[in-house]
Parts: sequence; structure tokens; C-alpha cells
Amino acid sequence: MQITAKQLAKLLNGTVEGNPDATVHAASKIEESQEGTICFFANPKYEAYVYNTKATILLVADDFQPSQAISTTLIRVKDVYASVAILLEQFGNRQIADVGISEKSSIHESAKVGEQTSIGDFTILSKNSRVGANCTIYPQVFIGDNVQIGDNVILYPGVKIHHDCQIGNNCILHSNVVIGGDGFGFASQEDGSYKKIAQIGNVIIEDDVEIGSNTTVDRATMGSTIIHKGTKLDNLIMIAHNVEIGQNTVLAAQAGVAGSTKIGDNVVVGGQAGIVGHLKIPNGTKIQAQSGVTKSVRKENQALYGYPAIDYKTYLKAYAAFKNLPSLVKKINELEKKLKEIS
Amino acid sequence: MQITAKQLAKLLNGTVEGNPDATVHAASKIEESQEGTICFFANPKYEAYVYNTKATILLVADDFQPSQAISTTLIRVKDVYASVAILLEQFGNRQIADVGISEKSSIHESAKVGEQTSIGDFTILSKNSRVGANCTIYPQVFIGDNVQIGDNVILYPGVKIHHDCQIGNNCILHSNVVIGGDGFGFASQEDGSYKKIAQIGNVIIEDDVEIGSNTTVDRATMGSTIIHKGTKLDNLIMIAHNVEIGQNTVLAAQAGVAGSTKIGDNVVVGGQAGIVGHLKIPNGTKIQAQSGVTKSVRKENQALYGYPAIDYKTYLKAYAAFKNLPSLVKKINELEKKLKEIS
Amino acid sequence: MQITAKQLAKLLNGTVEGNPDATVHAASKIEESQEGTICFFANPKYEAYVYNTKATILLVADDFQPSQAISTTLIRVKDVYASVAILLEQFGNRQIADVGISEKSSIHESAKVGEQTSIGDFTILSKNSRVGANCTIYPQVFIGDNVQIGDNVILYPGVKIHHDCQIGNNCILHSNVVIGGDGFGFASQEDGSYKKIAQIGNVIIEDDVEIGSNTTVDRATMGSTIIHKGTKLDNLIMIAHNVEIGQNTVLAAQAGVAGSTKIGDNVVVGGQAGIVGHLKIPNGTKIQAQSGVTKSVRKENQALYGYPAIDYKTYLKAYAAFKNLPSLVKKINELEKKLKEIS
Repeated sequence: MQITAKQLAKLLNGTVEGNPDATVHAASKIEESQEGTICFFANPKYEAYVYNTKATILLVADDFQPSQAISTTLIRVKDVYASVAILLEQFGNRQIADVGISEKSSIHESAKVGEQTSIGDFTILSKNSRVGANCTIYPQVFIGDNVQIGDNVILYPGVKIHHDCQIGNNCILHSNVVIGGDGFGFASQEDGSYKKIAQIGNVIIEDDVEIGSNTTVDRATMGSTIIHKGTKLDNLIMIAHNVEIGQNTVLAAQAGVAGSTKIGDNVVVGGQAGIVGHLKIPNGTKIQAQSGVTKSVRKENQALYGYPAIDYKTYLKAYAAFKNLPSLVKKINELEKKLKEIS
Repeated sequence: MQITAKQLAKLLNGTVEGNPDATVHAASKIEESQEGTICFFANPKYEAYVYNTKATILLVADDFQPSQAISTTLIRVKDVYASVAILLEQFGNRQIADVGISEKSSIHESAKVGEQTSIGDFTILSKNSRVGANCTIYPQVFIGDNVQIGDNVILYPGVKIHHDCQIGNNCILHSNVVIGGDGFGFASQEDGSYKKIAQIGNVIIEDDVEIGSNTTVDRATMGSTIIHKGTKLDNLIMIAHNVEIGQNTVLAAQAGVAGSTKIGDNVVVGGQAGIVGHLKIPNGTKIQAQSGVTKSVRKENQALYGYPAIDYKTYLKAYAAFKNLPSLVKKINELEKKLKEIS
Repeated sequence: MQITAKQLAKLLNGTVEGNPDATVHAASKIEESQEGTICFFANPKYEAYVYNTKATILLVADDFQPSQAISTTLIRVKDVYASVAILLEQFGNRQIADVGISEKSSIHESAKVGEQTSIGDFTILSKNSRVGANCTIYPQVFIGDNVQIGDNVILYPGVKIHHDCQIGNNCILHSNVVIGGDGFGFASQEDGSYKKIAQIGNVIIEDDVEIGSNTTVDRATMGSTIIHKGTKLDNLIMIAHNVEIGQNTVLAAQAGVAGSTKIGDNVVVGGQAGIVGHLKIPNGTKIQAQSGVTKSVRKENQALYGYPAIDYKTYLKAYAAFKNLPSLVKKINELEKKLKEIS
């Protein structure tokens, strides 16, 4: 595909600065840009690359003020990342799976498959399961009894969805995601052993949810573990039984949420952060990577950091003092000494 | 299934307070309780729900003292969680897999399968492997050469058990668990590269062990990595080579144990906690979530917290002071100033 | 296999101290050593076992000075771990997979498979994929379109390698590793929802890389996520899009590296450590387990610890003072009181 700066500016609702007929055929990273490509600049850390890029077109923010001369044709847009999303769709060689149902799959006679849905080799659709239309179910997927899956869903190889769980429309589940494994529930017995508590609930994943590779979402003890619309989970995340996560919330890789905690909308949880069970995390909360949240959060839109997590700025200030603790101790000892001398 | 309060009280060895003929057909969560169901109250955080539940029967502890009037029929029991375990078994629609061996599985001629055991589609039993009686081996499971599996075992889809490993009776391994991957062992060479150390040991999982989705237990370099009887591992846990974990010990999700560490009986390890290699963790130790244990623990039944982990209460007190460090620094500077004025 | 101390010393380029004709048939751990076996002593924590081992031969370092009498025949070597690597290869009953291509696999007509390569049951080779010579591709592996795999590679059951990714020679990928899942990239929209940014790059794994069970390496947004030659990743690690990791670098289990971070050669990253995105970590950096690195590191060969990570020793000293903060606070309050009395 060949496309000009003028055409791209129209597509992205931006303005051209330079040669409107400059033509590109691909996108590249700003650190590795090549002639004939468009690359983008959004993160200030990469500004040095702007001034010696070989890219033919450079996508920048409306308000970007170069500190040196730039020879490249610029396209200025309101939101660079949003434009990149549109751009990569243009250039991306999206995988189009063969439409069809593999003869090497195993589909129960009671299972239903919508139109234009493809089912890969060695994939299993169990009793009374239902997959909607226009779905791509890759090979080696397991879909348990009574599972319901909406339209336009992509399940990558190795995804396992257990009985009674529900997946909405437009969801993407990456390889080896496990939905609906048993919640971790045991009753301790007098002899110190544990008796398993049957986990008879399910998992409900609403529309437009994306879940990264090897993430696990456990089924509820009773009722449902719920991930609401538009929420995005990265890789290797643990969502325990009866957790509920609101809309358009983002969890970075290796975060974990313990049982029955309720997370609101538009929350951002950093990588490797943990949230203990039975808490409420309101809308707009920001939890810094590796933090450990041990108490419910009262107000919306707060930023948290630390272990256990406290107010973000309070943690940073305390940590700055922490680093100097040895010299502080020394100072105190000197004060003590002087005071003794005086008194 | 319909069951009365009287019948349930008998089943749970409890006492009815209210209408002994109150009838329920299902269990529900106290936050979402409905007429015709039984729900349970154990966690004090949920007490508010007790007083306006729509449930027909409420399961509470012997010594529960309501602070307001309750209209629901109560069943009082000694241990609520233990009773719930029994209860959910009554109401749970347990998955009964079809007994039989799928024609789409791949079973080596030298493998042995016990009576009443089912083997799912695309599951592999390798050379000289042995699966006991009454097991449910779901689809897409891999069982390597010489693996031995006891009776009444459930292996969920995607479980991989490598050569020479042993699984006891009544074990449950959730989806995509990996048992017996190579331990992480390399000898550093003079040129900075690493030479792989062959991992020739195995993994032994004793009876009554449950392991959560996507957890990995590596094989020993020599000898065995061992998980003793009754121990429960949550999801996404890492157990390194030559680790030994005692009986009835519980590890929460995303915890990690490095090589050759020995953990005792009845230990509780919180989520995302890490334990470095070659340590001894005695019986009854409690490790708070996200803690990092870097030294062997001398006495039994200690609680640990922090990074590196120290005594639980010591950490909490120090952290309370940590939060106020900036004002402490200010105070010290004022003291210093005053002292100078005086002297 | 029977082998004498003399023969072993020759193999390991070491010297015998004791009976050169002492004969062993297997290796054992020093804690569980048995007659007729060789065991090794390298970690000082295990010295007590040296003096009452039942092993017939003991492998020790050149400069080991026993503090008590030893009855066992010793073999002294320059580097014990390197010798163990050689030793276990001698004794290890390495799994030799049947050479051949399973009839139960699914291989696209355009895929190419090298000589002496075995392909297991239910494994998939997609369009235009290529696997080199002498590879062992276990059952239930997924290899996507245009994937290229070198020679002497082992892919364990459940490995998933997505379209366009490349794996070098002599690599070992353990069970359920996912290579080339989509990077976690979304453009936030004005209404608070997220729009997926297509991830059109790939993953390149160079020669001699080993990757542990259930680890995930995401594909680049554009360009490549790269793991250079000789690097070793443990289990359950997350490598995000566009990360680049140098040669002979080691990451322990459950570590995570966020997007676009560049890690140098010979770096050591401890378990559960996290590194935020867009950083540079130079050669020889050592990151302590559970640390959270939030800034680029300027100098090579530094040791880091803490959350956020600072200089290793600075952290330890500050943490030592942290533990005593409550008594420090008390002392300050007393100083304040005294000072008031004086003034």
C-alpha cells in the first residue's frame, strides 16, 4: 500500500507540514526509521530521534515545538496514540484465519457455531456450548459445557474456558488464558487439613474485553466473577473468585486481585501490584506498579503507592527520607551527645 | 433439590433458629441473596447484609450475636466455612465427565489406565505412564514417559506432566499447570555464557494436593521436588527445583519459592510473596502477601512481613513511622537549630 | 554406567584425593547422598553434610579447606558448578524423543521440517512455517504462519509461537511458553474507553536462549521484541512489546519487563523484580529479587535493591534503620522534651 501525507492527514484528521505528496508504504519505530515509512513521536524520551530520523513522514502532536530544525514532513494530530491506532490498522498485515471448521476439531453435536466463524485443529466445543458469528477460534482451544461466546471474538491457541462461563462480543483472549478454573476456597479442618469448598459459580466477561497470555480468571464460589465492558488485562494476571472489575479499567502484567474485591471503572493498576480480598476500589483509582493495597479506598481518583499502599506522594516523600535514614540516625546521635554535654 | 432447615441442620450438625420447615433449593451469596436460597455469614465485613437478606435460611456461627432484629431462619453451626464446604457439595452441579477413553486421544501401548477413568480428546499418555482409577483426565493434557498418577485425580485441560513425575491420589491440577519442567540451573562459563546443568530429578506430588491454573513446579536437579499431602497451591505460582513443601500448607496466587528451600507443615504464604533459595521455613510460619523472605526462619509459628521480611508487627510499626518520616526530619532539623541557639 | 574417580577426574580436568579406583554409578544430592554415588559441594550452607556423607566420591573446589576429617574420596576441580553440568550430562537419562512426524499432527503443505526433527501429536505447523534440523517439537505445540525455527531446538508441550516470530538455534522453550502474543497497547479515547493499537511487529529469539514454563514474550508494536544470544529466562516471566534483552542475561522467575525497555548483556534480574517501560539497563547490572526499577541506570555493573530500586547497600543500610524507626521516634521525642526543659 502506498499512501501520501495528504491522504494520511485526511484519515487522521490532521494537518501536513512539509510535502503533502510525500509517500510512505509502511510504519516504523522512530529509533529504527527508514525512508518510505511513517513513524510517530509521542514519548518525550525519544525526542533526540526526531531530528535525525530517516522516515519520510513523522506523526507529532498539535502542540509539539521542535527545538532543532526538522527536514521530515510532519503530520500534526490532536492525539498521537489514537492516530497510531488508526495508522497501524492501515498498515498491519492482520492475520485472517481461514474461515471454516477444522475436521480435526472436536465439536459436540449439541454445540452451536455462528456464521463466518472458524474453528481450528484440536479445538474442543463441549456440550451445549455456543460460539457466535465472525469469531476466530484458533487451534487447541478448550470450550467447556454450556459456555456462551458472543460475536467477533478471537480465542488464541491454548485458551481454556470452563463450563458455564460467558464471553461477550468483540473480546480477545490470548494464548493459554484460563477462564473459570475453580476459585481457591478451602475450609480448614480441626486436624489442620483443608476441605475443598465446591466452586459452583461462573465467570462473565462482557463486551470489548482483552485478556493477555497466561492470565487466569477464577470462577465464583457462588454467583459470578465479572469483568465489565471495555476492560483490558495484560499477561500473567490473577483474578480470584467473585472479583468484579468495572468498565474501561486496565491492569498491567502480573497484577493480582484477591477474592471478592470490587474494582470500579477507569481504574489503572500497575504491573505486579496486588489487591487483597474483600476490598472496594472506586472509579479512577491509580495503583502504582508493585503496590500492595490492603484497605478499601474511600475517595475516587486517588493515586496509591507502597507496601502497604498509601497516598502516592506521601510514599515518595517518605521514601526520599528513608534513603537518608542512616545519616539521620547519625545526626540524632550527635544531637543527643551535644545535649548531654550541655545539660 | 429441595431441602428444609431441619434437614440441613442435621446434615451440618447445627441448630435451627426460626422455621424448621423453611425450604431452599439453592445457595446464594449474602450480597445477592434471593428467596428460596440459603446464604452464609462468616466474614464480619458483610454483617450489614445479614439484616436485610432475602434469603430463606442464613447459616451463621454458634456464637453470632446479631446487633439488629433478623427475620430469616438461622442455622447455627460450629464452623461456618466447613459447613459451606458440605453445603455447596449438596447444591453444586458437579461436572461429571463422560467415563470413557476418547478415540481422539493418543495413548501409548505401554500406558495403563485404571477403571472408571476418562481420558479426553487430544490428551497424550506417553510410554510406560500409568493413570489410576476413577480419574478425570480432561482434553489436551500431556502425560510424559513413566509418569505415575494415583486414583481419583482430576487433570484439567492443558495440564502438562513431564517424564518420571508422580501424582498422588485425590489431586486436582487446574488448567495449564506444568509439573516437571527443567529446573533453572546453569553453570557460568569464563566467557560469560551459561552452560545448562541437566535436570535429572523429578517432581513428587503427594495425596490431596490441589494446584491452581498456570502454576509451575520444576523438576529437581537430582532427587525430587516434593509437595506433601494436603497442600494447596493457588494460580500462577512458581515452585523451583528441589523445593520441598510440607503438609497442609497453603500458598496464595503468584507466590514464588526459589530452589532447594524447605517449607514446613501448616505454613501460609500470601499472594506475590517470594522466598529465596536454600532456606528453611518451619511449621506454622505465616508470610504476609508480597513479602520477600531472605533468611531461614528459626522459630515455628512466626508471622513475617516486609521486604526483606521481618517480624510482622515490627514491620507494621516501622511502616507507621515511615509514613511520617518527612515531618520527623523537619522536627530533627528544628531540634538541631534550637540546640545551636542554646549552645 | 560405572565410572571411577580417576576417569571422572580426567573428564572434569580435576585431581583425585583418596582412592582413584572408587567407583560410582549415579549422582546424588549431598543431603541425601548414598553409597556408590558422587555428590557435589559448592554452597557453604551445606558444609555440615560434607563430613558425614555416604557418597563414594565428593566433588569440591580446588581451594576447599575442610574443617574436619573427611573419609570420602574427593575430586578437586576449578569450578564445581561447571563440573556438575558436565557430570549430570554423563549420568542424566536424557529424554530422546522418537524421531518422526506424528500422523496426529497438523502440518500445512507449505511448512518445511528439517532432517532428524520430530513433531509430536496434535502439534500444528501453520502456513510457510519452517522448523530446522534435529529439533524436538513435542505434542500440542502451536507454530503460526511464517514462523522460523533454527536447528537443535526443543519446544515442550503447549508452547505457542505466533505468526512471523523467529527462534534461533539450540533454543529450549518449556511448556506453555507464549511467544508473540499481542503487545499491550491501547489508545485512550475521549469517552474513557480504549482502542486497540494493532501490534504488527514480531519476536526474535536468538541462539542458545532457554525460556521457562508459562513465560510470555509479547510481539512488538512495530519492529521486534528481541532476546539476544545465550540469555536465560525462568518461569512465569513477562517480557513486554519492544523490549530488547542483551546476551547472557539471566532473569529469575516471575520477573517482569515493561514495554520498550533495553537490557544489556550479563545482567542478572532477581525473581519477582519489575522494570518499568522505556528504560536502559546497562551491562552487568544486578537487580535484587522483588525490586522495582523505575529509572534508567547510568553506570554498568551496579547492584540495585528496593522499591523503587536504589543502590543495593544504600537500601540495606536504610532498611536496617527503618526497622528501628519506632525507637528512633521515641528518642527524638525525649530529646525534644529535654531540650524544652533546658531552654
